[in-house]
Amino acid sequence: MNISLDQLSTFGREVFRQAGLNQANATIATDALVAADSWGIHTHGLKNLGGYVKRLNAGGINPLGQPRVTAEGPAWARVDGDASLGMIGSTFAMQQAIRKATASGIGFAGLCNSCHFGAAGCYASLAADEGMIGIAMCNDTPTVTVPGARGPVLGSNPIAYAVPAGEQLVLLDIATSTVAGGKVFSAAALGESIPEGWIVDEQGRPATDPSTFPGKSTLTPMAAHKGYGLALLVEILSGVLTGAAVAGGVLSYAYEDPSKPTNHGASFVAIQIEALMSRTEFDKRMQSLINEIKNAPKVTGVQHILIPGEREQKCKSKALEEGVNLPDDVWAKLIEVSEFSGIDLPVD
Amino acid sequence: MNISLDQLSTFGREVFRQAGLNQANATIATDALVAADSWGIHTHGLKNLGGYVKRLNAGGINPLGQPRVTAEGPAWARVDGDASLGMIGSTFAMQQAIRKATASGIGFAGLCNSCHFGAAGCYASLAADEGMIGIAMCNDTPTVTVPGARGPVLGSNPIAYAVPAGEQLVLLDIATSTVAGGKVFSAAALGESIPEGWIVDEQGRPATDPSTFPGKSTLTPMAAHKGYGLALLVEILSGVLTGAAVAGGVLSYAYEDPSKPTNHGASFVAIQIEALMSRTEFDKRMQSLINEIKNAPKVTGVQHILIPGEREQKCKSKALEEGVNLPDDVWAKLIEVSEFSGIDLPVD
Repeated sequence: MNISLDQLSTFGREVFRQAGLNQANATIATDALVAADSWGIHTHGLKNLGGYVKRLNAGGINPLGQPRVTAEGPAWARVDGDASLGMIGSTFAMQQAIRKATASGIGFAGLCNSCHFGAAGCYASLAADEGMIGIAMCNDTPTVTVPGARGPVLGSNPIAYAVPAGEQLVLLDIATSTVAGGKVFSAAALGESIPEGWIVDEQGRPATDPSTFPGKSTLTPMAAHKGYGLALLVEILSGVLTGAAVAGGVLSYAYEDPSKPTNHGASFVAIQIEALMSRTEFDKRMQSLINEIKNAPKVTGVQHILIPGEREQKCKSKALEEGVNLPDDVWAKLIEVSEFSGIDLPVD
Repeated sequence: MNISLDQLSTFGREVFRQAGLNQANATIATDALVAADSWGIHTHGLKNLGGYVKRLNAGGINPLGQPRVTAEGPAWARVDGDASLGMIGSTFAMQQAIRKATASGIGFAGLCNSCHFGAAGCYASLAADEGMIGIAMCNDTPTVTVPGARGPVLGSNPIAYAVPAGEQLVLLDIATSTVAGGKVFSAAALGESIPEGWIVDEQGRPATDPSTFPGKSTLTPMAAHKGYGLALLVEILSGVLTGAAVAGGVLSYAYEDPSKPTNHGASFVAIQIEALMSRTEFDKRMQSLINEIKNAPKVTGVQHILIPGEREQKCKSKALEEGVNLPDDVWAKLIEVSEFSGIDLPVD
C-alpha cells in the first residue's frame, strides 16, 4: 500500500494545522518528518505524529511556539525553542549554524527548550543542501545504560552528519545506543523478538523481549564504553552547554505527562566547505574517496559496498517515483491519527 | 620498574634533539607522547619514539619542519604541517583552533602534510586546559575494513574529546575500529591471543592471531556500519577537507618507506564554553551530570561507574607521584632506542 510523499506531507500539515500550528511551522515540522520517511527511516518519521499531537493538545508542546536566538557571537548562537515542536526549533537552530558558517567558516548553534526532534539526519542535510558539512545531535530521556550501571542513564543521543559530494549526499544518522529505541518499539509492535545485545533487563543481563522496553529493560550503548563516551559528548554539547534539561531531567515526549515541556536540547554544526577548499576540488576528492571504498575487494556474496546515505538516497528516489510503502506499524499509527483528528489519510 | 614522567620527558627530548629537532619542537613532541604515557595509553606514547626517529633520520619526517597557517578566516584555519612530526603539527593546529574559538566562539583547524599524531586526546586536552571543549581526530593508513569489504579500507581514524568540569577532565579517546591497531601489536609482542571480533582474516572471517596483523588481517569497524560511518566523517574532515592524503594515499609511518612523507591529515575543533555560558554555571551543570551518572544503580559486583577520562586522570596522578610502570613491550622499545641512539634511559 503506497502513499506519495506529497500525500504524506498534506496529511502531516493538516494534522499540525488542526493542532494549532501556523502554515509555516506546520510545513517545517512535516518536511522534517517526511524527509525521514522518504529515506526509509520510518521509526523517526510521521509514525510519531500522534505522539506530537497529543503533547500539542495537552500543552507540553506549544503550538504557537516560535524559536528565537537568545545570544550569539561571530560563529555561534544560543537558541530557545520556546517549547515548540523539536522539528521547528531544530530547523531554526541549524539555519543559525548555517548563517554563522556563511560568515565565519564554521557555525555552532545550541538549542534548549525543545522536544524530540525526529531524525537527526534531517537537520544535518539542511547544511548539505547549502553546500556545507552538517552535524546534528540531541539528548533525550534516559533509555540507555552505561558500563557498570543497570538501568537507563543517558538518552539514545543520536549523531548525524551530512556531506555533499557532487550530486551525492553522504549521510549518517545513528543512535549512540546499539540500536535506536524506535527499532525495539517496532519489533514489539510487529510481535518480533530482537537479537541479544540490544537491551538488558533490570539486573543488567542480556534480554530479547522488546515488549519489556522501556519499563523493564534498557538499551545498551553501542560498542560499550565507546558509545557511552560519545553519548556523553552529545549530552554535554546538547544539554549541558545549551541550558536545556540534562539526562534524567529530559522528559519522554511519548510517556510522560503531555502537559509538561520535555526541555530536550540539541546542537548543530555547519562547516562551510568553500571557506577551506573550492567545491570543485572538494567534490573531486570526495569522489575519489567514494570510488576507493566502492572498489575495495568484497567478501564472498557481496556485490556492492554501500556509502553511508546511499541506501537513503535510493529510497528517496524510489519514493519520489512510486510513493512510500509504509510498514504496517506505521500505517496503524497514521490511521489512529486520522480517526482521532477526522483528517483523511489519502491512499493510492 | 618505574620511571618518572620527568625522566621520560628528558629521554624523549634528548632523542628528538639528536634527531635534529630544535629544543622547542623536541619539547612539544615529547610532551604529547609523555601525556599519553601518563594517562596509561602506552600504545600511543613514547613506545613509538623509535618509529618516529627512523623516519626523522630517513627524511620522511622533516626534523626542521615548522607548521604554518596557509589560509584562515574568522573561525577556521588551514595548517600545513611541513612534514614535521604529527605531534608538532597537531599541537600547532589545535592552538589555531583555540585562537579562533577565543575570537569567534568556535574554531576549526584542518591540518595536512602531517604524520602519525599519537593519542588524539592530547590535543583535545590542550583546549580543555584553556577552559574550552576540544575535539581532535585524524586519518591514518588503512588498517580497518568496512561492511562488505574484505581488506583494509579506512584507517583506525580516532576521535577524542576533552571537556573541563571543575577540577575534573572528561576525556574520551577512541579508535573508530573495534580496537586500535596498537592493542593488536601489543598482544602480538606479548604473545597473547586476542578476542574474536577485533580482526578478520583475508577472506573477512573472524581471526584471533594478532601476529597476522596488519599483513594478513584487518581491524573491524566498531559497531559495524556505525564505526564505518564515523571513520568516514573523520576521513572527510581530516583528509578530504584539509588537502592531506586520503585513505589508501596515507602512508604507514611504521611500515612504509621511511624516506617518504606520510601526509596524514587531522582536524581540530575548540568551543569556547564562556561564549555560551559562564564557567561557573557550566561546571555546576557538568557536576550535576557526573553525579547523576555516578549515582546510577550498579550491576552486581560493580563499585563505581567510571566517567570517561577518570581512569586516565587517576593514572596521571599516580604517575606524578610514583612514576610510570611501563609495560614490558614499551620498555623493550625504549631500550632499543637507547641502544641505537646512545642516549641513557634513566631508571629509578
